[in-house]
Amino acid sequence: MHTDLVAALDIGGTKIAGALVDRAGRILARAQRATPAQQDGETVMQAVAEVLGDLAGSPLWGRAGAVGIGSAGPVDASAGTVSPVNVPGWRGFPLVDRVREITGGLPVELIGDGVAITAAEHWQGAARGHDNALCMVVSTGVGGGLVLGGRLHPGPTGNAGHIGHISVDLDGDPCPCGSRGCVERIASGPNIARRALEQGWLPGPDGDTSAAAVAAAARAGDPVAVASFERAAQALAAGIAATATLVEIDIAVIGGGVGKAGEVLFTPLRKALTDYATLSFVQRLTVVPAQTGTDAGLVGAAAAALTRGPEVPAAAR
Amino acid sequence: MHTDLVAALDIGGTKIAGALVDRAGRILARAQRATPAQQDGETVMQAVAEVLGDLAGSPLWGRAGAVGIGSAGPVDASAGTVSPVNVPGWRGFPLVDRVREITGGLPVELIGDGVAITAAEHWQGAARGHDNALCMVVSTGVGGGLVLGGRLHPGPTGNAGHIGHISVDLDGDPCPCGSRGCVERIASGPNIARRALEQGWLPGPDGDTSAAAVAAAARAGDPVAVASFERAAQALAAGIAATATLVEIDIAVIGGGVGKAGEVLFTPLRKALTDYATLSFVQRLTVVPAQTGTDAGLVGAAAAALTRGPEVPAAAR
Repeated sequence: MHTDLVAALDIGGTKIAGALVDRAGRILARAQRATPAQQDGETVMQAVAEVLGDLAGSPLWGRAGAVGIGSAGPVDASAGTVSPVNVPGWRGFPLVDRVREITGGLPVELIGDGVAITAAEHWQGAARGHDNALCMVVSTGVGGGLVLGGRLHPGPTGNAGHIGHISVDLDGDPCPCGSRGCVERIASGPNIARRALEQGWLPGPDGDTSAAAVAAAARAGDPVAVASFERAAQALAAGIAATATLVEIDIAVIGGGVGKAGEVLFTPLRKALTDYATLSFVQRLTVVPAQTGTDAGLVGAAAAALTRGPEVPAAAR
Repeated sequence: MHTDLVAALDIGGTKIAGALVDRAGRILARAQRATPAQQDGETVMQAVAEVLGDLAGSPLWGRAGAVGIGSAGPVDASAGTVSPVNVPGWRGFPLVDRVREITGGLPVELIGDGVAITAAEHWQGAARGHDNALCMVVSTGVGGGLVLGGRLHPGPTGNAGHIGHISVDLDGDPCPCGSRGCVERIASGPNIARRALEQGWLPGPDGDTSAAAVAAAARAGDPVAVASFERAAQALAAGIAATATLVEIDIAVIGGGVGKAGEVLFTPLRKALTDYATLSFVQRLTVVPAQTGTDAGLVGAAAAALTRGPEVPAAAR
């Protein structure tokens, strides 16, 4: 049997997406269910089974030789379990074993969603050709992943690159994670909006108080909106510089809704990076927007399955 | 010719040490010169040549098959050059080529001194058996290195693990590196002593204002001295937690003069780690004192040469 495809799953708090993906990273079949996030664990698993069932109905299914899963975290790749914050019915849920059973024993690779998006950016996006990269998602939360020495670095449990929860302000505001002054606590979309509102920013007649609305106000020159993005940029810069100083990356890629804010974010971010990335070996660090889109999670999960481990597919290099 | 030994060089701002080291990590011959740190680059190089000359006078020299160098940073392993902060005559100095010439073409491995100490701790010290570790030196400065996936992670230029210059206080005091609120700016020995003095700590009749004297006062219950160590511990904890969150380490090893302060440092450090290392995959992180001594730099440089790259010698696993 010719197994030149992989099945990919992208599991989040809102939807469970599946696909059959070829070695060039092309999506040849798709399936999707809403995540029954507030229901019991077996009901969530049933939705995963339905996505896989749809894919198995494709005439291409027989060519799938492995399954790659990118899941909202935390995950535990060594145990094959997941405990997504927004899916309370899954705590230490044995997702890898369950998917292996459903698929008749196919090998299953599990990584966190930030690591999956990193695999996608390294394979097809802005980190292509970079052997040492940080890829981030800045939206409702702040996540990320690392490529080190040309290979994905998921870490032993598949959670490495979790830049949203490093503290860049050790006396700062409490973060829901239990720490203080985390990058996410300062730079996530909701925190950008919260800070602007607290400082007196007034939304437009549509009442939109999202970070996207703050970005629009900043582009129009509203100084409070500008300042909120500058503060987010400062925290992101401190976190990116810390990462570069610790593991020597030469590029940081930023995706997610806040990453789409454009120069309102990237201009102060590049300026702040020169303040925090000071040592000789990190001064050439660049920061760019992500290039992959909504399929990044699926494509990255496929990359993990194609290589049966943390290597990027050969075609990507 | 049987080449079962390596020559190791440990180059710092005070001394240049050399040794012949076997595959078990035993030092079989030694040589040393003071570093003429304020003189021109060729004079510094002459001291290195004299150390190598002494080693070459040993009857064991013929068994040396490679040279490992651990140097004060920054280094550039990819270019083979060094620019130690405290040796102004060496800026982009081609140390690897020069050592290769002197030794008749032996292969030369160059790493930063923090990476070298990490190699030593992984081979013979407290990080033995740990596949993912951060090793730190906390003394006049704060340096470090990483072991990831069982292998030393020097990074492309040999400087990775530079935890002393990550910012944990993005609005904090300016650091000589150009950034703000760096771990070193809060936790180094001179900064522990400075903070204690600023807060009203009075040295004893001997007038000793070193961090060791502050540690002694803290052990005796002086609240200002205790508070200065607690603040250092907080900064170290934030930096260690950030490292664990980014790359998934399970142990942090602390050496150097401040690391010898004992429970005055380690008790508040372990407490602060529970504040900052909050995500599930970093909660089992432990922090312990270093075990290797003043030869750590030589032993680590030897480890790098024995493996001709970032792997730890097989005997160490």
